[in-house]
Amino acid sequence: MSDQLERRLFDELEQLPLIDPHTHINPHAAASETLADILGYHYYTELAHSAGLSREQIEEPGLEPRELVGRLAPFLEQLDNTVQVSWLVEMCREFFGFEGDRIGADNWEAVYDAALRVMSADDWEESVLRASGLEQVFLTNDFDDPLEGFDTSRYVPCLRTDDLVFHLCRQATRDRFEQASGTAVSDAASLKSGLASLFEHFTSRGARACAISLPPDFTPAVPDVIAADAALSRVDGDTEWTCDEATAVSRLVFWSLSESCSDFGLPFDLMIGVNRQVYPDGVFQGQDLFDKRTSLKQYAELFNAFPGVTYPISVLSSTSNQELVSYSWIFPNVITNGHWWYSNIPAYIEADCRSRLQAVPRHKQIGYYSDMYKLEFALPKFRMYRRILARVLAADFVVGHGWSETRALDLGRQVLRGNVDSIFGGVS
Amino acid sequence: MSDQLERRLFDELEQLPLIDPHTHINPHAAASETLADILGYHYYTELAHSAGLSREQIEEPGLEPRELVGRLAPFLEQLDNTVQVSWLVEMCREFFGFEGDRIGADNWEAVYDAALRVMSADDWEESVLRASGLEQVFLTNDFDDPLEGFDTSRYVPCLRTDDLVFHLCRQATRDRFEQASGTAVSDAASLKSGLASLFEHFTSRGARACAISLPPDFTPAVPDVIAADAALSRVDGDTEWTCDEATAVSRLVFWSLSESCSDFGLPFDLMIGVNRQVYPDGVFQGQDLFDKRTSLKQYAELFNAFPGVTYPISVLSSTSNQELVSYSWIFPNVITNGHWWYSNIPAYIEADCRSRLQAVPRHKQIGYYSDMYKLEFALPKFRMYRRILARVLAADFVVGHGWSETRALDLGRQVLRGNVDSIFGGVS
Amino acid sequence: MSDQLERRLFDELEQLPLIDPHTHINPHAAASETLADILGYHYYTELAHSAGLSREQIEEPGLEPRELVGRLAPFLEQLDNTVQVSWLVEMCREFFGFEGDRIGADNWEAVYDAALRVMSADDWEESVLRASGLEQVFLTNDFDDPLEGFDTSRYVPCLRTDDLVFHLCRQATRDRFEQASGTAVSDAASLKSGLASLFEHFTSRGARACAISLPPDFTPAVPDVIAADAALSRVDGDTEWTCDEATAVSRLVFWSLSESCSDFGLPFDLMIGVNRQVYPDGVFQGQDLFDKRTSLKQYAELFNAFPGVTYPISVLSSTSNQELVSYSWIFPNVITNGHWWYSNIPAYIEADCRSRLQAVPRHKQIGYYSDMYKLEFALPKFRMYRRILARVLAADFVVGHGWSETRALDLGRQVLRGNVDSIFGGVS
Repeated sequence: MSDQLERRLFDELEQLPLIDPHTHINPHAAASETLADILGYHYYTELAHSAGLSREQIEEPGLEPRELVGRLAPFLEQLDNTVQVSWLVEMCREFFGFEGDRIGADNWEAVYDAALRVMSADDWEESVLRASGLEQVFLTNDFDDPLEGFDTSRYVPCLRTDDLVFHLCRQATRDRFEQASGTAVSDAASLKSGLASLFEHFTSRGARACAISLPPDFTPAVPDVIAADAALSRVDGDTEWTCDEATAVSRLVFWSLSESCSDFGLPFDLMIGVNRQVYPDGVFQGQDLFDKRTSLKQYAELFNAFPGVTYPISVLSSTSNQELVSYSWIFPNVITNGHWWYSNIPAYIEADCRSRLQAVPRHKQIGYYSDMYKLEFALPKFRMYRRILARVLAADFVVGHGWSETRALDLGRQVLRGNVDSIFGGVS
Repeated sequence: MSDQLERRLFDELEQLPLIDPHTHINPHAAASETLADILGYHYYTELAHSAGLSREQIEEPGLEPRELVGRLAPFLEQLDNTVQVSWLVEMCREFFGFEGDRIGADNWEAVYDAALRVMSADDWEESVLRASGLEQVFLTNDFDDPLEGFDTSRYVPCLRTDDLVFHLCRQATRDRFEQASGTAVSDAASLKSGLASLFEHFTSRGARACAISLPPDFTPAVPDVIAADAALSRVDGDTEWTCDEATAVSRLVFWSLSESCSDFGLPFDLMIGVNRQVYPDGVFQGQDLFDKRTSLKQYAELFNAFPGVTYPISVLSSTSNQELVSYSWIFPNVITNGHWWYSNIPAYIEADCRSRLQAVPRHKQIGYYSDMYKLEFALPKFRMYRRILARVLAADFVVGHGWSETRALDLGRQVLRGNVDSIFGGVS
Repeated sequence: MSDQLERRLFDELEQLPLIDPHTHINPHAAASETLADILGYHYYTELAHSAGLSREQIEEPGLEPRELVGRLAPFLEQLDNTVQVSWLVEMCREFFGFEGDRIGADNWEAVYDAALRVMSADDWEESVLRASGLEQVFLTNDFDDPLEGFDTSRYVPCLRTDDLVFHLCRQATRDRFEQASGTAVSDAASLKSGLASLFEHFTSRGARACAISLPPDFTPAVPDVIAADAALSRVDGDTEWTCDEATAVSRLVFWSLSESCSDFGLPFDLMIGVNRQVYPDGVFQGQDLFDKRTSLKQYAELFNAFPGVTYPISVLSSTSNQELVSYSWIFPNVITNGHWWYSNIPAYIEADCRSRLQAVPRHKQIGYYSDMYKLEFALPKFRMYRRILARVLAADFVVGHGWSETRALDLGRQVLRGNVDSIFGGVS
């Protein structure tokens, strides 16, 4: 009975049109052209590399798409237990008519060819959006992205700010900033003024969020403007700042971004906990990991300082989830946001989803985002989440609290879709 | 079948008379007078504030009880998924004849009036104790509480010591100490002597425990008496100690309390992990959070130094639960104690309860306490725990180990009640 | 149906012959002679001590085996909820014809006598190996173990190196090193040369792994050879190094061991997170605990420096499991290894097993090792794991992903046995 209940809830949740509130989609090439666009996703290349395929084999310059898939496919056999490969199989069954349950050395070519046929259709991008129930897809745009040449009502700009906060010591970053904003950054004041230009540009193009990923040891604080100004005043080409100088500048930029979010009414997505390049010999985008010794306590000063800014928070370590639940339960401006990266596997999603639904106000939870690079991933990733959401709704709310299925579904729809509308401003 | 098994175990556990070993009940006003006493609980005010109600609305001076409930009620609709609101609904159904399953803007007045009628009965306090199966309720008493005017065999005093350990720099704390103990604290010796007076007073009134809550970075250690004496010798009004001085005094007071617990045979409840006033603009009692970067390793020196003192330990972060299980498994004087605050939601209770039952001696576990401020909360909170306990007993012991239901219930009764008797000394 | 599915999978997994890839078996006395060899295991003595039995009672010099069991048995009644005691009961039922479900003051003598009869058989060691399905048992050998007088194809040597990394300040350790390796350690070069002798000796006797347990605050790094050489040059008897000197030497020895693992093709088992002697008054082997504030990030430099060395990793804190999953998913040379000590209880095994199966390449997971000191423990410990593994395979793979039972069992067999062969080199 409980299985059937779960199934009914899942089937209903499958019908809901979605907004995907965080992706890395390139709006100029949103859908895949070959299976290599899918298997080239770091989730597969890094696992194949972990399973024994060399980086040189994966990243050989000039490699043909078919050849890349041919090299990766045999390694899928060692990875078929992973949820990542289950996404692949589900995608191929759903979109490309694949009827098997494993993809490997023996059958990848047929899958490749079938995918190629499907993807070659003129309307593939439309088809995959429709089949996946996607109404809108939020992007991750560099701060100097012109945001031109695509439909911003479908592909919604979001201002990604990692480079500004952490790489302002580089000449190239400062050059890009000057070009994009019309302002050379030389101190707190020019930074502030330049940021205003960027926010102006982004919001004029329909941007819905500012976003950043942050290392575990980052602690935002009211910036020491004098120290930051001093560091900024001595930049000259690619500059090596001392640790203190780098901290002063990072805090200044981060704080200024929060001020701009306040000024422009943008939510500020914080993705907390990633260490970059922990494995520098890893494949592209497969080099980052984390250190669980981090706390949302580090952000208390920020949350207090900007009561008017909404902070949707993603945590990389599942051990941070209870802090996220508790900080969202207390701070009006803290929102739980999806299940990020190393926490985006069913074992962690279920535990984290359950605790959030039990203790965070229902309108302060963004259930899921895909984080995808290609449109085809939304369907299997959201479906994984919907299965878990249906299970938690069934067990904890219908069975546990005696809720009607309708009432449980209302809650499910709210975290899956409604809150994306209300927190980020909805379909424009 | 497993559902029915769980139900049978739950029904049996429901019959067990309880001692609630940690509450914040005011013995002079133990039961609620209006629904505002219930909705005024920080669990509701902080969630309503998190959901958007301003502190000014909640804490307006002179606010009538009915008006407070009227302001809070509409926000319950955003909170109906939370376990906290499920307690409220269960309470209203159980005590006030409420027959619905949601309380909000539309129906709060009827609930308010029904509650008022019930609470106005002369024997409401008796009724709620009886209906909740409560035989005794442990209190949280300030160190200078006269402990007079109430039945200490029903409302059992416990000596709360946060102020002494952390706020002795304040003139008011020292004045209260002098008044209560007859001793002005000026050094380690006078502190020790004054504490003896307090413990004498408390134990003469039937006190069962000394208790304290501690921040994540607190590390008790053999105190540096010379440094502490020096700090104490220079107090003058509200004194600003250096960080080192404050640490020296806190460690001295904490260590002296442990010595007094040893001398007077009192368990020392340690509630580990709370950061106070992380959100200073939050509502009353809705300002505290935590930093999960803490370890019971910080307490090893203490546990070694006082083998004769029993330490029932509560941890605020569920990520500390495995340490608590392991330290209780190894240290004879460490006891697992309930599910505290941000860990007091089903997702964390179930995981924590399960691991404790699997690895901690059965007589070293205090299953649950309500932490309540008003008597009406014991019933729904203990019931939540009993449901989870029944589930774990059914799955892990009856089904998993082939235990009889009787044997599983014996274990359940021991952690729910028997150990409270044996660890704190039982009904006097 | 799901219960029956689990049962079928479990029954199949029970048939699989095992290699136990980490134990503390003494190959000269592998099986128990009396029940005291079993109840003398620290899992029971430390729990009995935690439950109230004094260390003096447990460790009285010259205590007869029967008397020891007689003293411990009454305390088992307080411990019957623990999984550790469930191993004992299962063992006694399986091996000694015990038909009850509790062992305590009333019936321990009959169990003792029955066990004695069974253990007295000439072929008891063979019998228990056969009944437990054990083909090979990996050992934990001191670095100066002569590795003689036993069948190394059954009892496989592994080089344990804690003493070298952490206790080289002791004259006795250096003497043992010189005697075993023929080289007096006086600097990095002589250390390296001596280690080569030890590895030569161990691999010539069929050693399959180098192993070490590490405290939470250990951070391997490229060693400062000059500092380490300076510290080594001034040793004289039992030497007190400064903290910096001790760190320099530990890092040097650890790094040199990794180099030797690379040279000799041995996996390096890292068991991360134990603090020794946290409770110095505890019973033998019942004094160690942990501090969860540790991260695999501390090992990133190591994993990068030795891509050719395989590191099977055990973590003591379950809160480290997600890091282990993620680091194994990214680093080709990181392997998940079993469920260690305080994480070796069903609540943690199930959560940890589930996440590993969902995200780590299937050939990079060593499901379980017993860590046993006496052969009788393999059966109940592996059985506990097989139950959990069957549950996860049933729920997540057969039900969750629609896998056939055959396919799920292939995965189960691989993590339970196949990967031990492929990672450590299999039956010789």
